[in-house]
Amino acid sequence: MTLQFEIAAAKGRGRRGCLKTPHGSVETPVFMPVGTQATVKGVPQDVLEELGVEILLGNTYHLFLRPGIEQVRKLGGLHRFMSWPRAILTDSGGFQVFSLSDLRKVTEEGVMFRSHLDGSSHFLGPEQAIEAQIGLGADIIMAFDECTEYPADPLRARASMEMTLRWAGRSRRYFEEHKGEVPWGSRQPSAVSHQENTRSLDSAGFSLSLKSRSAGDDISFKKEAKTQALFGIIQGGMDHALRKESAERTIEIGFDGYAIGGLSVGEPRNLTREIVESTLEHLPKEKPRYLMGVGTPEEIEGYARLGIDMMDCVLPTRAARHGLLYTSEGKISIKQARFAGDEGPLDPNCPCRVCRRYSRAYLRHIYAANEVLAQVLNTIHNLSFYLDTMRRVRHSI
Amino acid sequence: MTLQFEIAAAKGRGRRGCLKTPHGSVETPVFMPVGTQATVKGVPQDVLEELGVEILLGNTYHLFLRPGIEQVRKLGGLHRFMSWPRAILTDSGGFQVFSLSDLRKVTEEGVMFRSHLDGSSHFLGPEQAIEAQIGLGADIIMAFDECTEYPADPLRARASMEMTLRWAGRSRRYFEEHKGEVPWGSRQPSAVSHQENTRSLDSAGFSLSLKSRSAGDDISFKKEAKTQALFGIIQGGMDHALRKESAERTIEIGFDGYAIGGLSVGEPRNLTREIVESTLEHLPKEKPRYLMGVGTPEEIEGYARLGIDMMDCVLPTRAARHGLLYTSEGKISIKQARFAGDEGPLDPNCPCRVCRRYSRAYLRHIYAANEVLAQVLNTIHNLSFYLDTMRRVRHSI
Repeated sequence: MTLQFEIAAAKGRGRRGCLKTPHGSVETPVFMPVGTQATVKGVPQDVLEELGVEILLGNTYHLFLRPGIEQVRKLGGLHRFMSWPRAILTDSGGFQVFSLSDLRKVTEEGVMFRSHLDGSSHFLGPEQAIEAQIGLGADIIMAFDECTEYPADPLRARASMEMTLRWAGRSRRYFEEHKGEVPWGSRQPSAVSHQENTRSLDSAGFSLSLKSRSAGDDISFKKEAKTQALFGIIQGGMDHALRKESAERTIEIGFDGYAIGGLSVGEPRNLTREIVESTLEHLPKEKPRYLMGVGTPEEIEGYARLGIDMMDCVLPTRAARHGLLYTSEGKISIKQARFAGDEGPLDPNCPCRVCRRYSRAYLRHIYAANEVLAQVLNTIHNLSFYLDTMRRVRHSI
Repeated sequence: MTLQFEIAAAKGRGRRGCLKTPHGSVETPVFMPVGTQATVKGVPQDVLEELGVEILLGNTYHLFLRPGIEQVRKLGGLHRFMSWPRAILTDSGGFQVFSLSDLRKVTEEGVMFRSHLDGSSHFLGPEQAIEAQIGLGADIIMAFDECTEYPADPLRARASMEMTLRWAGRSRRYFEEHKGEVPWGSRQPSAVSHQENTRSLDSAGFSLSLKSRSAGDDISFKKEAKTQALFGIIQGGMDHALRKESAERTIEIGFDGYAIGGLSVGEPRNLTREIVESTLEHLPKEKPRYLMGVGTPEEIEGYARLGIDMMDCVLPTRAARHGLLYTSEGKISIKQARFAGDEGPLDPNCPCRVCRRYSRAYLRHIYAANEVLAQVLNTIHNLSFYLDTMRRVRHSI
């Protein structure tokens, strides 16, 4: 398998490491910004690079519906489509599909669902989810799982976990048979037409003009590392024994890394933490561990110190769009009138380009005036705060 | 008066020059992007700097209503409020107020109007408009005028022109009495509290930390050049004789520069051009000439070659938000399905950061998906195209 994970240091239960992907290295523990529709809402890719983002998350469900997997595949995969030369992880689409509670029907085969965009019918099962993720070509892709609802009774939690395990096996089988079909893989000729005068392709199918503009970057397109990595997902609801069993049987199937799914679904925060702690005990130390959909700055720091290597969450980007900003002095709502005359920076301890340049008064004004720049700047700051939080944790390990 | 205007070269009727303002030099002929609410919608200030924007336009009407003139003045003026160290021009608010056709009442004194935001009543006359613009502290401010509607009969056009002349006199008088009150002026102590540890002020009331980040920039805060410049506006409808009279009598009052107003109000394009050409004949060669609210890329190039030095228009920014993009191969609507698989750059001849990095397929996708990044990138490209158009014109003179 092509993903390399090296642990450089450990302190307590936390560890610092490095994920080597076909699109560059990722220092862990890492927070992955969410780029649902092939964009982190409002933030240009060069700003993400400047912020130090080394890996982004894309949502298979959204890209499946628009612009469609085949379209992205023909254009060379998600990296090239969105002009993002660094690493990408895609989810399986399962979580989003299950969230469409009135629009979907689950069977052993998979999930029939209706598009939230136009009501059209679609089907995703393990094979379709892996096929889609191979077409998108993320560096790390996820097995198709069922996210067990909360609360769930013991029978329901077990049945759901068992189905996730069967789906994990099918995901792994489909992946092994088709992993050579990734759009940037060595076995796949580029299907993309390009203009000789403006863009030329290197062997990884990526634009050389982009590479040359990223001089000094640590991206290397390794010729020998040309397939994706597949992660399994641990389910089992809020039951420690089921979580242990799910972990053991998922590991038996064998994946490049392991995710803890089915949390942050409405349960109390202390229960989330208990389940994470107990599940971690059953995961192999040498593989990356990914906690899905968590959390606040305090939570991502706490989980990193428990030994989680990867996290993602819409919180920093979604909160930014609602004017909720994370600072070293706590969370603030920039819409409040008390900031109207406040000439200080958003966070005096933050070195981001927003805090260096703009006052709270200005950020309050553009938010109150419903200006798009508010969303742009707020998102840049919140992402910077999250990334700095993880940088600080890494430095402390 | 403090604005210096030097003409470096001329070719045909066109001329190339340099406006020296208290906030830096502006190469002319220049296109001024519109930053209505203290932001060019969707574009961070550092990107505007990178694009080479040397002067921005702010709208007094919008800033008057929100966040309010006194708020901006207390925060050091518009430059400091929006963290824009380069030149700014504000309009008088007249044009916007007259556009509120159902919400305003015009008298000799000025205009009573209702806010489009909350229906509250406000009054703007020449004195209030100049007072507001001194509070905002733009480098170039505009006399309060009445924009004559189109079509207008001869009596109405003359009456409107006469009122604009009386208002021009009142604007000039108020300005002369109060021009020392500009927030960054030498006679005005800074009313802004600031944090010693993060921001310190130079004598121009601007943050030193911003200045240091702009090292290499051509901005200089001249100690001796500390008042604003006031421009008069020529009206007279579509009547050549009235335009001539308006020009002569406005020049008699005496301004730092002269604007041609009352065009692009619904008249045919060839009539606009005729009026511009004939009005230009009556304007002094040694003063900057500003054509308000014009136009397409072809038009701004054409007017520059007729001897116009300054132009502004919402077209590039507004069109961008509707997916209409100007390219060296003509205007395109990026929403069209034919771009869904088009991997070429938006404009193969454009060196902007959008054309260097993103494909038409990607720009089409984010526009179709209603992503904020579409507005951001489209606006950056269109502004780049407009600025490059003017750069090309300057180089050709």
